[in-house]
Amino acid sequence: MMFPLKRLLIGRPLKSTELGEQKLNKTKALAILSSDALSSVAYGPEQILIVLITISAAAFWYSIPIAIGVLILLTALILSYRQIIFAYPHGGGAYVVSKNNLGVNSGLIAGGSLLVDYILTVAVSVSAGTDAITSAFPALHSHNVMIAIIFVIFLTILNLRGVTESASILAYPVYLFVLALFILIGVGLWNIATGTVPPELHTPIGTPVAGISLFLLLKAFASGSSALTGVEAISNAIPNFKDPAPKNAAKTLTFMGGLLAILLSGIVFLSYYYGVVPSVEVTVVSQIAEETFGRNFMYFFIQGTTALILILAANTGYTAFPLLAVNLAKDKFIPRMFTIRGDRLGYSNGIIFLAISSIFLIIIFKGQTEHLIPLYAVGVFIPFTLSQTGMVVKWVREKPKGWVGKLIINALGAIICLVVTLMFFITKFTQVWSVLIFVPVIMFVFQRIKNHYEAVGDQLRITEDNHAVPIEGNVIIVPVAGITRVVENSLNYAKSLNANQIIAVYISFERDEEKKFEEKWNKWQPDIRLVTLHSQYRSIIQPLTKFVDIVQHKASEANYGVTVVIPQFLPKKGWQNILHNQSSLLIRAFLLYRRDVMITTVPFHLKK
Amino acid sequence: MMFPLKRLLIGRPLKSTELGEQKLNKTKALAILSSDALSSVAYGPEQILIVLITISAAAFWYSIPIAIGVLILLTALILSYRQIIFAYPHGGGAYVVSKNNLGVNSGLIAGGSLLVDYILTVAVSVSAGTDAITSAFPALHSHNVMIAIIFVIFLTILNLRGVTESASILAYPVYLFVLALFILIGVGLWNIATGTVPPELHTPIGTPVAGISLFLLLKAFASGSSALTGVEAISNAIPNFKDPAPKNAAKTLTFMGGLLAILLSGIVFLSYYYGVVPSVEVTVVSQIAEETFGRNFMYFFIQGTTALILILAANTGYTAFPLLAVNLAKDKFIPRMFTIRGDRLGYSNGIIFLAISSIFLIIIFKGQTEHLIPLYAVGVFIPFTLSQTGMVVKWVREKPKGWVGKLIINALGAIICLVVTLMFFITKFTQVWSVLIFVPVIMFVFQRIKNHYEAVGDQLRITEDNHAVPIEGNVIIVPVAGITRVVENSLNYAKSLNANQIIAVYISFERDEEKKFEEKWNKWQPDIRLVTLHSQYRSIIQPLTKFVDIVQHKASEANYGVTVVIPQFLPKKGWQNILHNQSSLLIRAFLLYRRDVMITTVPFHLKK
Repeated sequence: MMFPLKRLLIGRPLKSTELGEQKLNKTKALAILSSDALSSVAYGPEQILIVLITISAAAFWYSIPIAIGVLILLTALILSYRQIIFAYPHGGGAYVVSKNNLGVNSGLIAGGSLLVDYILTVAVSVSAGTDAITSAFPALHSHNVMIAIIFVIFLTILNLRGVTESASILAYPVYLFVLALFILIGVGLWNIATGTVPPELHTPIGTPVAGISLFLLLKAFASGSSALTGVEAISNAIPNFKDPAPKNAAKTLTFMGGLLAILLSGIVFLSYYYGVVPSVEVTVVSQIAEETFGRNFMYFFIQGTTALILILAANTGYTAFPLLAVNLAKDKFIPRMFTIRGDRLGYSNGIIFLAISSIFLIIIFKGQTEHLIPLYAVGVFIPFTLSQTGMVVKWVREKPKGWVGKLIINALGAIICLVVTLMFFITKFTQVWSVLIFVPVIMFVFQRIKNHYEAVGDQLRITEDNHAVPIEGNVIIVPVAGITRVVENSLNYAKSLNANQIIAVYISFERDEEKKFEEKWNKWQPDIRLVTLHSQYRSIIQPLTKFVDIVQHKASEANYGVTVVIPQFLPKKGWQNILHNQSSLLIRAFLLYRRDVMITTVPFHLKK
Repeated sequence: MMFPLKRLLIGRPLKSTELGEQKLNKTKALAILSSDALSSVAYGPEQILIVLITISAAAFWYSIPIAIGVLILLTALILSYRQIIFAYPHGGGAYVVSKNNLGVNSGLIAGGSLLVDYILTVAVSVSAGTDAITSAFPALHSHNVMIAIIFVIFLTILNLRGVTESASILAYPVYLFVLALFILIGVGLWNIATGTVPPELHTPIGTPVAGISLFLLLKAFASGSSALTGVEAISNAIPNFKDPAPKNAAKTLTFMGGLLAILLSGIVFLSYYYGVVPSVEVTVVSQIAEETFGRNFMYFFIQGTTALILILAANTGYTAFPLLAVNLAKDKFIPRMFTIRGDRLGYSNGIIFLAISSIFLIIIFKGQTEHLIPLYAVGVFIPFTLSQTGMVVKWVREKPKGWVGKLIINALGAIICLVVTLMFFITKFTQVWSVLIFVPVIMFVFQRIKNHYEAVGDQLRITEDNHAVPIEGNVIIVPVAGITRVVENSLNYAKSLNANQIIAVYISFERDEEKKFEEKWNKWQPDIRLVTLHSQYRSIIQPLTKFVDIVQHKASEANYGVTVVIPQFLPKKGWQNILHNQSSLLIRAFLLYRRDVMITTVPFHLKK
């Protein structure tokens, strides 16, 4: 039953050789990798104004220089990540760059905070998109959590189906959103140019404002730069691109940077010119749209595509998380299962893990994930800072042609990112302190896992002086519960193995049955030695384990192996299993995990 | 961690030979087997009055003749069950008697309805007792379900500890309840004899009442006879008695009948003489107690012990259910696990099953189990009727000395029980119809289970012409994942078995690694044949299963057995298991359930 359902949802399995067909061209890559970055246009400018309004509406003109600062940061990031793409064409982004240049611990800080961050991305963006929808349809409001979870499941299925398929479906809403904002900005600027909008709505740039401080401006800048989260996604996902992957990735990154810059400056400028005041009920974009078009079709088109892209921003997490997990798993910091490709060639374990974790967050926070946003921004800027610093170290160390220019770009980026990170810690400590706990915890776990894998590797490696002792003979123990065909079957098998000794073990609960059984046995199998063990406490495991210990002790002296042959009969239908004592499973589990004996299960399939 | 907790709650395991010490003397047996029957005194008389009040308070004098009718029924039941005890000294009550004399289907009807009934007993009595407590402390009222569940868990632990221990603890409340009612009845009669109570409170017996009908009187009689539920418990539990078990059981039964008769007639008489009118808020016993003592210590003593005995009535279910289950399981109508004695020699599986089912009922009905009472009464009177009829058939068939007298007793009992049963169906059909569905369903399930066990028995039995074909040789398949000590270990084991052929199987996901691996292998293990399978869909199970099928097909032609040797390495700590692909478990489960091959697990215990 599960199987056809899986086929229906996920599609037929793909051969490993079909991997190439799953690669992305630039148009699709832009759609699925930039939804996170582009969607931040919907809330980034608003974040700046929310900080400035704490002084007065007169301070709004500062949003222009702050936006210019954000654009400079964006430019530095884009240039810097272009350099990273070419330097590390196999992807991995901040984790790989930090690890290779700054050492393992820096890499783990970057990798750990990004892993958590992608989970936050999914939870936060899906919740935000759901809020946008339920604001339009208030009747749905009480089902917020359920709707968010359904979206997560939808995205999960889409991503399990494979990268290209999700790209084809997701491309439309992303480009529609870009189109909608372009129209909005275009018409808005036209209105300004033609003088339809009165210029009195805003204070001129340069107006002195009482109470403004550098601290406040930096806080507004940090808030605004939360619009840059998601910029690193492309550098993590290079392996998903069509060849030549690095070149295509770099072009896509530049194009995305351009789009982001246009949309960001357009929205900031319009909101400044229109004198938009941020409010709890209506978003800044919504106010601009209403100012420009009134409440007509275009207004709802903009609102609709915005809600959609907020949800789809989660998809960036789905693309980047599994690839980062693969890099961490290859380095043995997280379980190896994250490196396995599923039926549709996606890294399904990573996708499923991401889905479960983000659903978990949505449920815990009851869909109110807004207060996770600063946490999420910090989780992005820590790895930003580390990877830029890593690049600086790389240039200094390698000194390739033109390294000074590259160094300046990355150094500038590193400094700005560091400042933004610090601003988050200083101005929003109550919301981001938990990073200081969970990053060390994650690093500790990573290290424990790595240690385990290395210890295992050492023990499994075959070296010259480290050979297994050959087994020179075998003792076979067959626990028997009666004289039945199942037992006969197992004995026949044991006999066929040319073992040095076969011992049948019967465990009795009552003294009087013992003799009877021994007599019957001697008639039935006179050539196989029967040992009868009495179990005072009606347990099978205890006396059997003791007996196995004794046999093993003797056998090991002669380098003999001990095999316990367990007869197991398998009913035809699953429900029938509860009608039988599952002693054979119990014996097997107990002996295998605690003793060094071979366990052979001889099946006896029931036919009716 | 689980182990010490279990020891603390349940106690140290007991040896099978200590079973004798767990047997009950008459005093303890009366306490744990009669709590159900005695507790019905608390609501039986009330049930009669509730029916009569539908005419008028003048009709209350009819409670006296009705109570006499109930006493006659009680006498018939006690005499009849005494006869059953001596005729069936190994217990089993209604199920065994009906099965032996009326045929398997009648037995199953009796057994099935009693099984369900004991679950209802537990749910209903614990809920009733909890209600009594939360009526006294209304603050607890919203925690009804939780309190009832805690009581069920308490009784479960008590019964898992063993029969004698629960008897010792439960004896006090039962005898205190009996004592309290004796004092109540004694003082009440003294007050009447000394003329303290005015005789005007009641209408004299024989006063003509308008609107009275035979139907109504029969309904009142049926309701009153719900006070007789639990009478059969002793006949089910004969094996729990000290030797001579049947004699002791019969004496206990008679003594219980006497107690029940005294308490029942006392309460009915006092309530008639005091002119008590049944009300929703205050029970009849509570009204009599208040009338007799006022609200002083004795009143609360009576109320307290009543609440307690209502909860303890559930214990009758705990004693009788596991024993009935053993009888059904021995006849293969329910899973065999119900015949296994636990650490403390009680039939723990039955006890635990009963606990889970009744907690389930309490949760579903949110602790409001009153409307289950008629269902529960019908569930008792159906087996009553069947067992009495069975005894009638037995006497007619066997004709022992004095059989006519015995026949008359049982025939009388059977007829009264049948009438009561029919009255329930006629007067309370809306509450008891579900019996007509679940009894057939249970019988169907019983029959399915029996059929399965018999089919299994047939297949396991060794007959002359039905011998297993001896295995004349062995082919061993070793799936290998690399060149490691784990694999070396398994190969050494395979080599030691003198198999006719050993084949190592390597499953590759990528074409280029295949050749490399083959070269390495040939250097390492030149004498063991390596088969490389390419898995296009990255699954291990599919190509391996196909290969096993091919090998098995060839092997079976020569009567060779096929053994798959699976290397499994076992990490030192449990959590480390998630760091490894559990392929070996998967392969084992898959091959074992679907193919006829032996599966050997060669453990490799990691040391760090």
